Amino acid sequence: MDSETIAAAVQARRPLAEGLFDTLRAETFDGVGITRASYGPGEQFAHELLRRTGDELGLEIATDAAGNSYMTLPGRDRGAKRTVIGSHLDSVAQGGNFDGAAGVIAGVAALAALADRGWRPDGAVSVMGIRAEESAWFGVSYIGSRSALGTLPENALDDARRPDTGRTLAEHMTECGADPASVRRGPPHLDAERLRAYLELHIEQGPVLDELQIPVGVVTGIRGNLRVPAATCVGEYSHCGGVPRSHRRDAAIAVSELVMGLDRIWDECESRGQDFAFTVGRFATDAKRHAMTIIAGQVDFSVDMRSLDSGFLDEMEARIQEMAMEIAAKRRVRFDLGRFTRAAPGILDEGIKARMRAGAAELGIPAIDIPSGASHDAAAFAAAGVPTAMLFVRNANGSHNPDEAMEIDDFMRGVELLAWYLANPA
Amino acid sequence: MDSETIAAAVQARRPLAEGLFDTLRAETFDGVGITRASYGPGEQFAHELLRRTGDELGLEIATDAAGNSYMTLPGRDRGAKRTVIGSHLDSVAQGGNFDGAAGVIAGVAALAALADRGWRPDGAVSVMGIRAEESAWFGVSYIGSRSALGTLPENALDDARRPDTGRTLAEHMTECGADPASVRRGPPHLDAERLRAYLELHIEQGPVLDELQIPVGVVTGIRGNLRVPAATCVGEYSHCGGVPRSHRRDAAIAVSELVMGLDRIWDECESRGQDFAFTVGRFATDAKRHAMTIIAGQVDFSVDMRSLDSGFLDEMEARIQEMAMEIAAKRRVRFDLGRFTRAAPGILDEGIKARMRAGAAELGIPAIDIPSGASHDAAAFAAAGVPTAMLFVRNANGSHNPDEAMEIDDFMRGVELLAWYLANPA
Repeated sequence: MDSETIAAAVQARRPLAEGLFDTLRAETFDGVGITRASYGPGEQFAHELLRRTGDELGLEIATDAAGNSYMTLPGRDRGAKRTVIGSHLDSVAQGGNFDGAAGVIAGVAALAALADRGWRPDGAVSVMGIRAEESAWFGVSYIGSRSALGTLPENALDDARRPDTGRTLAEHMTECGADPASVRRGPPHLDAERLRAYLELHIEQGPVLDELQIPVGVVTGIRGNLRVPAATCVGEYSHCGGVPRSHRRDAAIAVSELVMGLDRIWDECESRGQDFAFTVGRFATDAKRHAMTIIAGQVDFSVDMRSLDSGFLDEMEARIQEMAMEIAAKRRVRFDLGRFTRAAPGILDEGIKARMRAGAAELGIPAIDIPSGASHDAAAFAAAGVPTAMLFVRNANGSHNPDEAMEIDDFMRGVELLAWYLANPA
Repeated sequence: MDSETIAAAVQARRPLAEGLFDTLRAETFDGVGITRASYGPGEQFAHELLRRTGDELGLEIATDAAGNSYMTLPGRDRGAKRTVIGSHLDSVAQGGNFDGAAGVIAGVAALAALADRGWRPDGAVSVMGIRAEESAWFGVSYIGSRSALGTLPENALDDARRPDTGRTLAEHMTECGADPASVRRGPPHLDAERLRAYLELHIEQGPVLDELQIPVGVVTGIRGNLRVPAATCVGEYSHCGGVPRSHRRDAAIAVSELVMGLDRIWDECESRGQDFAFTVGRFATDAKRHAMTIIAGQVDFSVDMRSLDSGFLDEMEARIQEMAMEIAAKRRVRFDLGRFTRAAPGILDEGIKARMRAGAAELGIPAIDIPSGASHDAAAFAAAGVPTAMLFVRNANGSHNPDEAMEIDDFMRGVELLAWYLANPA
């Protein structure tokens, strides 16, 4: 199918996409923003809406043990590998309508458009509505996608609890008609080796495309992270007038020095093209004890470090410990960095990325390469060995808030590219 | 009187000093430490004890409108200028027994010892028990000494309130038998021009003398301060994955950079012998909003800067504002440093310092020059133009806590030096 035909077919399905966004928004508006809690009523409604829509479009409907939804256009060759287009249908509390849902609706619109022109793929193409991606609810990432792939950590079903309800993930799954025992037992619904590709369209959560006035980005990779969720620096509380510099144990200066050390590493990374970012979201002297004339005896802080380069994150684990030790010796304080947590970078498929760039050129869609700083289900597919790619769509005002502002024009260009790739995978 | 006679006379009064310390401790112990709140019952008891003791020693007893106590040995020449030996009789909550009281008891012991040998000064010598030095109670420093000198800011009597009682300074004064209307009206009890000298012995609040194993320090000067009690840096809360470095407004990095900038200034000062110290006692992201994966949108902090050099503090007021502006521009944040507060350095009299050094040499007391990082009533006398000096006595474990540990042996050496100076002022 030529690119003009594809573009026209996709644009003809714009009312379908708009209708789905509008219905979702109307049904899951919480008075301030959008709330579709993982395994909560808003997410449940979204899955029912998508399955009903798939059914109306003549797609095959399935649900797996974790409650993920699949709307499938069967392939001509039942033996050929399956392509999955997916994203999540949950949202953070008081979030926006597009984060997650856009990727599922894009898949539905692309399949509908291609089917409208009588297109049949070689291998099946499934649109997957994924459960429980937002770790804000259960403190565990990629619950739906990892359940489907058989890579969810064993203890998550019983250990992870939603803070607002106090109930476990397994209990919430059961409430939504899913079958946690079967998730536990396996086999997984998706066999990674039988998947040709996983494709995810998502709004950009940063301002880059918006500022450059580019509607679509081809994602180069998904950053992994190395985190120190609960670090402490212990100094000594003492009257700031009485203690000479040589005797101070000042936790506020010590942690500031660590922060600026990380910032210098970021400078170095930028100058040599090494992907890196760090965030100290929490930096807090003790509200019960701190005072203007008392040297800070304790600072609690967190560090989130991100990179596309897994080896560099390994290196950073050693470097931050080394820096903390040096500063501790120099400043007479003690650092307790606590437990480190890790998530591997999501390595995206070079072949699919190249095709996406070619498709954008053919369709006349301005597109650039862009890394993903945030996490996505795509990382779970990539980690399972599935050739994976992501597209970002321009969006103003960030995500995880009611002010997300994706234009449907931009979204439809992303759907064109997705449809083009399905029709021209190689 | 020769130095051996003075030393012997002072050592003979050791039981007087020990008895006063013991009685004070027994009557103002709060179960954890010592509490003698400004214009509270513990301070009141201390004044009554000192006046009673002075009366027993045959000294003239007086009380001024602010409730400061004076125990005076009249001079031979009623026209000669008066010397005041003073310190404060209040303490912080759960503090130690020596901070403040040691200076008053030292004066009493020195006068008693000299009077024992039939000594009479040219001009009168008064031991002054000073009210309300600890700004922890009313948030105002030097209340007693500045009331006596007529330099207390006008609004303090009605505006300053003790947070624990909610009542004003004037109300608390009245409760203790003082006369705030008369403090307001004047004239002040002490005419600075009629004072020959103000002398204050105080425990060292830092570890320097203790570590050097030196019993007595001749204070070179009292640091002034420049403070930013309530500063804020405003950035922008946003998801740490989505925002590229060029768009971040990270308040935690920005304030860390300011802290390290001040630390570099401290390095420079040390290398060129410029007295300086700074403390950021409060450095706090917002507990309601901060999170590991959210860029810090706000940091509240305080800065206390100290120096013996008033001109350097002027310079620092400009430099910290300049640094904040540079960092704000570079990091896309906004600093609101809020109100600055100032206290001028206490310039101590070179002539008295030289005499004190000479006295220590004659008495065989190891003594060094040492600056005072903390504030003292002496600064109020120096600011009023009175030739002023201070002695520090070795003390372990800092002050403002129950573990203050001054040895009476060291204290008595300090009293020897004080008595020697009274007998040998020039």
